[in-house]
Amino acid sequence: MGELKHIISALVLQKKYLSAKEIMSEQNAADLSAMFEELFGEDFEEKKEFLLLFRLLPKDLAADTFAFMNPEMQMHLIGAFSDDELREMLAETCIDDTVDIIEEMPANVVSRILKNSTTGARKAINEILRYPGDSAGSIMTIEYVSFHRDMTVAEAFEKIRLVGVSKETIYTCYVTENRRLIGIVTVKDLFLAEEDDKIGDIMETNIISVDTAEDKEVVANMFRKYDFLAIPVTDREERLVGIVTFDDAMDVIQEENTEDVTRMAAIVPGDDSYFRTGVIKHAKSRLPWLLFLMISATITGIITTHYENAFEAVPILVSFMPMIMDTGGNCGAQSSTMIIRGIALEEIHFKDFFRVLFKEFRISILVSAVLAAVNGVRIYIMYGHDIALSLAVSLSIICTVIISKLIGSMLPMLAKRCGLDPAIMATPLITTVVDSCSIFLYFNIAVLVLGIG
Amino acid sequence: MGELKHIISALVLQKKYLSAKEIMSEQNAADLSAMFEELFGEDFEEKKEFLLLFRLLPKDLAADTFAFMNPEMQMHLIGAFSDDELREMLAETCIDDTVDIIEEMPANVVSRILKNSTTGARKAINEILRYPGDSAGSIMTIEYVSFHRDMTVAEAFEKIRLVGVSKETIYTCYVTENRRLIGIVTVKDLFLAEEDDKIGDIMETNIISVDTAEDKEVVANMFRKYDFLAIPVTDREERLVGIVTFDDAMDVIQEENTEDVTRMAAIVPGDDSYFRTGVIKHAKSRLPWLLFLMISATITGIITTHYENAFEAVPILVSFMPMIMDTGGNCGAQSSTMIIRGIALEEIHFKDFFRVLFKEFRISILVSAVLAAVNGVRIYIMYGHDIALSLAVSLSIICTVIISKLIGSMLPMLAKRCGLDPAIMATPLITTVVDSCSIFLYFNIAVLVLGIG
Repeated sequence: MGELKHIISALVLQKKYLSAKEIMSEQNAADLSAMFEELFGEDFEEKKEFLLLFRLLPKDLAADTFAFMNPEMQMHLIGAFSDDELREMLAETCIDDTVDIIEEMPANVVSRILKNSTTGARKAINEILRYPGDSAGSIMTIEYVSFHRDMTVAEAFEKIRLVGVSKETIYTCYVTENRRLIGIVTVKDLFLAEEDDKIGDIMETNIISVDTAEDKEVVANMFRKYDFLAIPVTDREERLVGIVTFDDAMDVIQEENTEDVTRMAAIVPGDDSYFRTGVIKHAKSRLPWLLFLMISATITGIITTHYENAFEAVPILVSFMPMIMDTGGNCGAQSSTMIIRGIALEEIHFKDFFRVLFKEFRISILVSAVLAAVNGVRIYIMYGHDIALSLAVSLSIICTVIISKLIGSMLPMLAKRCGLDPAIMATPLITTVVDSCSIFLYFNIAVLVLGIG
Repeated sequence: MGELKHIISALVLQKKYLSAKEIMSEQNAADLSAMFEELFGEDFEEKKEFLLLFRLLPKDLAADTFAFMNPEMQMHLIGAFSDDELREMLAETCIDDTVDIIEEMPANVVSRILKNSTTGARKAINEILRYPGDSAGSIMTIEYVSFHRDMTVAEAFEKIRLVGVSKETIYTCYVTENRRLIGIVTVKDLFLAEEDDKIGDIMETNIISVDTAEDKEVVANMFRKYDFLAIPVTDREERLVGIVTFDDAMDVIQEENTEDVTRMAAIVPGDDSYFRTGVIKHAKSRLPWLLFLMISATITGIITTHYENAFEAVPILVSFMPMIMDTGGNCGAQSSTMIIRGIALEEIHFKDFFRVLFKEFRISILVSAVLAAVNGVRIYIMYGHDIALSLAVSLSIICTVIISKLIGSMLPMLAKRCGLDPAIMATPLITTVVDSCSIFLYFNIAVLVLGIG
């Protein structure tokens, strides 16, 4: 990839545009778009010579390359295009790619795009834009191949040949009647049938489809489950309005994973990549949870002040606080992460509530026994064979591990039940909740076992 | 889905097997496999009547259903099959599915599977099994369609019709010469060409392929980047040995995400889902990091004991410890998560080291200023207008936030550089490292500002 950039920029320097064009024409759109992003770099305005390079690309390759670029590059290019150029480009771009581009652009660019789209495309774009951002409707495309049930296989092949070039996928085709979806035929089915078979006789009628309003994460999970190339999207009257293809599903899976991971680290998820997000926006997305958690952590502090007598009598107690808190936090984090992931992969449901709790309880017994033993021995050896002290700390660890694993597994399931994203119940929040519990348990056990006060 | 199970089990109770067969034949394999898993439940042995049900399925559907099942169910079924049944089933199963099944089975079942496979299949299976578990070779299939460059489009169509039924995908076909991969042709290309065009003239020669030894995560990322249906896998002599299809890539993406998330919660990743993993195995996968982190946390404890004088003089200092530690941990977690995710998505590389550090530094200035201000005011109001105390805590927060964001962003990049998985440098480890730093800073600042000792 880096090589391509060097070859092309060397050719541009020598003004060998024809050779550059020839080499670029053999590349694929994803690599070319990465190359242009690197060539233009940060200061688009000073790199006018690369604009010429882009104009040299064959029209369809240019459109594909454009669709792969990041929003910033797209905006710069649209700004540099004439209306004619923009119109030509949009004519070659898939509707769903155009919608993706529009969603990232400021209003004035959007109106320029719509002005230079065909009437049909404009109508379709507006249709898709009406669907909520996380729905199946928002990621679908309307460019699919449809058949009538009375067509023969030979006629179907003819239709694919005729209209296929402009469709997102030709490999799964849809049979409709009065716009209602009545069957699915794959190109593989067509190959295996006889030329004069009727589509109505070979089509699959056990249709798996999604509603336009369906959550796009659910749709993506269906791709994982069924290994489909495409899933049809229908409206409330079961009319076919579009299809979602596997590449869009793959993007959704990756987006949702990023969103989950981000949220699990107490960050408000953003749309953009790390470097394309500004410092202020980063700070804004991190502050809300930090503030909330900082204030919440003072509860643990307030609990501590109630046991001033205890750590004034036995100051060494303070030095075990970090270990107790960290162990509780880590145990809670482990459980909550397993449960959050299980919910996301649809392996764990709310009906499993008590099954999960019982399982985590048994795990925590095993884990806490080992941790308490190791720690008890360590304290006994390091702190002058003080059995009471080592007993107090070991007991606290056992209680902390059990309670934090239970809290860590309960909260994500409860969040899901309440319609919240389970991912917010991850490490940071769990840690804060568990801290209060573990410090409270620790000092109470210490006071009791050591006979303080 | 639940419905299907109820309908079928009602029909079985009434011994209406023919109706059950009819309904099942119209379902897809993924739903059927879920139904069988639910029907058999935990005690396979007592549910012999459902085995009959499985035998009623058409052969190809039975094989697909079998491939979708979990390893436990597969093992039970293989145990119940006669050699003849097993042979029939395997004949209908894709090679890469058979390999997936074999990888989960104990040795005696594996040898039964190999014994009942055809010689060709056995050879192919053994070939794939030789590749390391995380390589492209291990997830590829050898069932692809290949052409010669001299074939016409009409001949190519004929070949697809002839061999296509048993291939994993027919939509991307490969042109080979002496087993070397020289071109790629999609069915779409074939449709758009003339019947007597030569394959050699219409094939794409700018081939993107992967080596058998390539990391499967890299392969999966290529699918995200290029939106391919399949990627060819070649050996060191550039001979075509197999293809990886998008559905396998989707599985890899999901597996890798789960592995990352698990590792980020200080758990040793396992192969199985939450419920299918036993309590002891869960405990074993959680204990190593917990033990290590617990021991590490004692460092923070030891630091604390050095400041016994400080908190004996000003006991309220202890109550701010949880807040300082939690805030540091959370800030570190945010940074490390952003960087780990960025590395996984190939957006952040080691060459960006200082760029990332500078960005995180600026973010931490903004974030810490807000946190320190809020906290300073709170302490000033709540603790009798003690300016020195509120200054000490606010200063500590600023230092803690900055240092933890720097540590949190540095460690994952360094881990990557050293060939380790960046995901191990996540919240739990970062928290432990940051705790020591923040407690050290906190007490030093407090001693200085409050003039203790």
